[in-house]
Amino acid sequence: MKTELQDHNLKALFLGSKGENVDLFKELLLKMIDEHVGWRQNYQPQDLPVITPQDKSSKSFQETADHVRSVLNVLSSKLRTNSLPWHTAGRFWGHMNSETLMPSIIAYTTAMLWNGNNVAYESSPGTSQMEEEVGHEFAALMGYKKGESWGHICADGSIANLEGLWYARNMKSLPLAIKEVAPEFVAGKTEWELLNMSTEEILDILDQIPEKIDEVKEHSARSGKNLQKLGKWLIPQTKHYSWLKAADIIGVGLDCVEAIDVDDHYRMDIDKLEAKIRELAAEEIPVLGVVGVIGTTEEGQVDRIDKMVALREKLAKEGIYFYIHVDAAYGGYARAIFLDEDNNFIDYAKMAEVHEKYNVFTEKNEWLTEDIYHSFKAMSEAETITIDPHKMGYIPYSAGGIVVKDTRMRDVISYFATYVFEKGADIPALLGAYMLEGSKAGATAAAVWTAHQVLPLNVTGYGKLIGASIEGAYRFYHFLQGKQFKVGDKTIHVYPLTKPDFNMVDYVFNEEGNTDLEKMNQLNHDFYEQASYVKGGLYNNEFITSHTDFAIPDYGNSPLSYVKSLGFSEEEWDREGKVTILRACALSPYAYDKDVFEEYASKIEQAIQEKLEKIYAVVNE
Amino acid sequence: MKTELQDHNLKALFLGSKGENVDLFKELLLKMIDEHVGWRQNYQPQDLPVITPQDKSSKSFQETADHVRSVLNVLSSKLRTNSLPWHTAGRFWGHMNSETLMPSIIAYTTAMLWNGNNVAYESSPGTSQMEEEVGHEFAALMGYKKGESWGHICADGSIANLEGLWYARNMKSLPLAIKEVAPEFVAGKTEWELLNMSTEEILDILDQIPEKIDEVKEHSARSGKNLQKLGKWLIPQTKHYSWLKAADIIGVGLDCVEAIDVDDHYRMDIDKLEAKIRELAAEEIPVLGVVGVIGTTEEGQVDRIDKMVALREKLAKEGIYFYIHVDAAYGGYARAIFLDEDNNFIDYAKMAEVHEKYNVFTEKNEWLTEDIYHSFKAMSEAETITIDPHKMGYIPYSAGGIVVKDTRMRDVISYFATYVFEKGADIPALLGAYMLEGSKAGATAAAVWTAHQVLPLNVTGYGKLIGASIEGAYRFYHFLQGKQFKVGDKTIHVYPLTKPDFNMVDYVFNEEGNTDLEKMNQLNHDFYEQASYVKGGLYNNEFITSHTDFAIPDYGNSPLSYVKSLGFSEEEWDREGKVTILRACALSPYAYDKDVFEEYASKIEQAIQEKLEKIYAVVNE
Repeated sequence: MKTELQDHNLKALFLGSKGENVDLFKELLLKMIDEHVGWRQNYQPQDLPVITPQDKSSKSFQETADHVRSVLNVLSSKLRTNSLPWHTAGRFWGHMNSETLMPSIIAYTTAMLWNGNNVAYESSPGTSQMEEEVGHEFAALMGYKKGESWGHICADGSIANLEGLWYARNMKSLPLAIKEVAPEFVAGKTEWELLNMSTEEILDILDQIPEKIDEVKEHSARSGKNLQKLGKWLIPQTKHYSWLKAADIIGVGLDCVEAIDVDDHYRMDIDKLEAKIRELAAEEIPVLGVVGVIGTTEEGQVDRIDKMVALREKLAKEGIYFYIHVDAAYGGYARAIFLDEDNNFIDYAKMAEVHEKYNVFTEKNEWLTEDIYHSFKAMSEAETITIDPHKMGYIPYSAGGIVVKDTRMRDVISYFATYVFEKGADIPALLGAYMLEGSKAGATAAAVWTAHQVLPLNVTGYGKLIGASIEGAYRFYHFLQGKQFKVGDKTIHVYPLTKPDFNMVDYVFNEEGNTDLEKMNQLNHDFYEQASYVKGGLYNNEFITSHTDFAIPDYGNSPLSYVKSLGFSEEEWDREGKVTILRACALSPYAYDKDVFEEYASKIEQAIQEKLEKIYAVVNE
Repeated sequence: MKTELQDHNLKALFLGSKGENVDLFKELLLKMIDEHVGWRQNYQPQDLPVITPQDKSSKSFQETADHVRSVLNVLSSKLRTNSLPWHTAGRFWGHMNSETLMPSIIAYTTAMLWNGNNVAYESSPGTSQMEEEVGHEFAALMGYKKGESWGHICADGSIANLEGLWYARNMKSLPLAIKEVAPEFVAGKTEWELLNMSTEEILDILDQIPEKIDEVKEHSARSGKNLQKLGKWLIPQTKHYSWLKAADIIGVGLDCVEAIDVDDHYRMDIDKLEAKIRELAAEEIPVLGVVGVIGTTEEGQVDRIDKMVALREKLAKEGIYFYIHVDAAYGGYARAIFLDEDNNFIDYAKMAEVHEKYNVFTEKNEWLTEDIYHSFKAMSEAETITIDPHKMGYIPYSAGGIVVKDTRMRDVISYFATYVFEKGADIPALLGAYMLEGSKAGATAAAVWTAHQVLPLNVTGYGKLIGASIEGAYRFYHFLQGKQFKVGDKTIHVYPLTKPDFNMVDYVFNEEGNTDLEKMNQLNHDFYEQASYVKGGLYNNEFITSHTDFAIPDYGNSPLSYVKSLGFSEEEWDREGKVTILRACALSPYAYDKDVFEEYASKIEQAIQEKLEKIYAVVNE
């Protein structure tokens, strides 16, 4: 039935920068609609239509249909007036948005006609099965053991991260609960030792007391007890606000969150992580968990998960253990680049050869360093991982996901005393009892499942697509590097923030000789306004980007070395306290192509020139 | 532009039991797709297509397109094999699922092509504006004051309820925080008094100290402190597991949840609520909040919100205050039945007249009692309300929602020190900082917005649609009442659980003379298996229903009087400890019609007869 394809032509998978594939899109969509309608007609064909020809000819029917037509006219106009043109092959270098996979759009629309609710198997047998398959595909992507791991779709990355923290909190509290309910299994352990047991040790004990698991859970953090004993939740200094929100919601509180400095590459400084953990241990404060990020939201950078894992192994010998959650909402799908056609992690030495075989990059790539290779490889050691199909899965919003290394953890947060599974299928009868949300669209599962069928989660499928986006990002990065613009007697230089770990390029404009950081920030903010919805006329804008502020309250002094490299003094940094950055997520599936990129490069260079001239015209007025 | 319509013909709003409106559906959908593609083409028309005719003629393109075709064939087959036929006008009496509004399906698909992310205004100006409008429409539906209230869309009812509890928890903790940060504003108050301040009092204090609000928030429950001081969260005995999950996640813990008995109508017993609150007060244990339910998940019943509000007013005089959250995930949209064309709550005496004017019921209805009227009316007094568009909004999954009476509460859970709003628009620039989730589909907002444009949230629009579903439910209820089936020498009677407060009908089959509760439960479970996916062949099944168990651990003795009315003794109830109930959500927009219903009634009577015969054939083997 399903064909295996060696060479996926990415251009057949998207609607197209100019809607080039609208013929294919309509062909497929209409076929699916017809098959749905045929299904309605042929369920008990002896039942006659309830909407009769007479109904359809009636005045009120016509008036109602015209009313619908009018409303949809307004909708279409609003969408066309106030949406972002991220479909362009080379003019949109802004938010994390782009073309999404045409087969997924069709799958979503089709499944929406059936409107399954994946909260319960019973109300969506087809799409529940798809979600279960997607979960196992995620697990394989992360290098988790088959048959021992699990995953599911959720609303978004914030919810997945919150669920990861929920897992960590309840896991960490279990030894204290076991001590109350079945003390013989943790005999002789001090509270410090209880709070430093590994996830595996804890689950192995639970395996031995199946009859007591409900009682143990009743004594866990879900009771509301012991939340303040569980220790600190350590996140990178590039902290996303969703982690503060998660700590608030989950009840451990903001006071338990500590940020670890990042290095010049905006990756968590693992030496500082070790120092912090030792400092806490000296005070007998445990570590609830550590968050590593694969693809930071504002920089696209990749934390050294391998070093984090190595640190955990080293500290385990000293009786210290911490849970690892990897926030790969953004970068998770990129692990496909490292998996061969049999889903095995490729040897570093063979990467280039395999990539060549599957046309993953069109030119020799400079992106793939050993650092990045090992960071991705070590993800398989994390307890839980967030991965968002609606980011690098090129699936329409909303589709988040979480992957769990050890399926047994599922029972730690589940509701209902008995294990209610469909016979043989290993699918929860009530998925809502095993996750944060309740009702959820079966259509999302259909969209993700279809995408994974079209593009396997390895080098042959998603690897190629994500490789294309990285190659496009590097083209943009090199386009910016060393670029300068003349505006009157001023020279404006462009400075990328860092070599991209992924497909995001951050950069700033600065006037030659300027040592006033506030002035540079103003220039970049003005530029953002010219290159976004702020000034109106989004649809006529020839170059669009996004922006962010790296400010001391969030970032500490992480941006200092970059700011200094631009010629600003440390005093200037302390005075201004922030640097405004322009930010380009390079997700386009087309910009990897040298000819395409070069055609657009001259156009966007011109557009940037015009924007800068506008800004200086106002400044000089 | 938008037309005002007096008489909405519901039959023009759905695809149809037999896909009768597929012509209209395709016309509208294709027009929207063409308008989208035109938009892509005309953004910078000087840019040429990047997918060339040569690309499209290439072998790899054709192979990839064929691969997509094959995958979609599999998808279509799986969906047609394993989905529920809820589209039928009269054979599906099961889960909370039905036809959804055709304009919303089209709006979702259209907006999905633009793939806006409503987490931030910047990345979805059009659909963010729609979500803001939807929020205000929800507020108007609930009778909240214009300009002082707010709402937003979220993933589902579980998330909305969790957000409600998050609001309640952080609100309740604020007086303790104010005492630490600005003690002069709560001078002389004891801890008990602090924990019994009204929401309005608390917000009025915050209004006076805008410069200290961030510091107050830092000392609130979000810090992780004081969670165990906030008191009990009281829910009806018909408790939905999502409330246990919510208490777990939010960190107050399951130990803070207490269930209040329900009466014979499965509504919270307000006398028992009062007794419980007084009992707690005697021990100086505050009440974090009380949950009222409008449309319980398993029974469709409506709590007496009016009595709950009256109790709060009475207790306020004794220095006791509790937060009220109304879980109207299911029943929220039904408040439209009570609002006239100007969105004013209609006088009870005038209800029949207004309904007649707008054809809300086709016959005199027996549903609308004063109890129900006052319950819906009093919703405007609750602090927060959950409302799910994907339930009685007839919007495809996933679309939940929450409404907040006092917009000032928004700042209590928000992130970021400064208030970041778009100029003039009063729309949060970063909605993700004011709600549980982060990224979310702009398409959901487009779907809900479009539905509300098509059908106003009052008696002229949704009132008529929901009235139709209630009328259909009552037809099914009367169809079941007193019905009996002969199988061999046995007589099987049908007994509805209660007169429906909304559009759900619960019922059981029992053999005449049977006094063995286990045997009755077995019969109903067997019947469910025959009338669901369990026995396979869903598509050929002529009558489909769902089931639930009312068991003592969840329900206490609430089902006892019903069980006794069927002839079982109290000892029998104690021995078996549960009753298996069949459950019909009557959401069909067609079954209200007398002729339609009667046509199906004889068919489903026959189908039920056959199922019972099958069951007894096995029993007698």
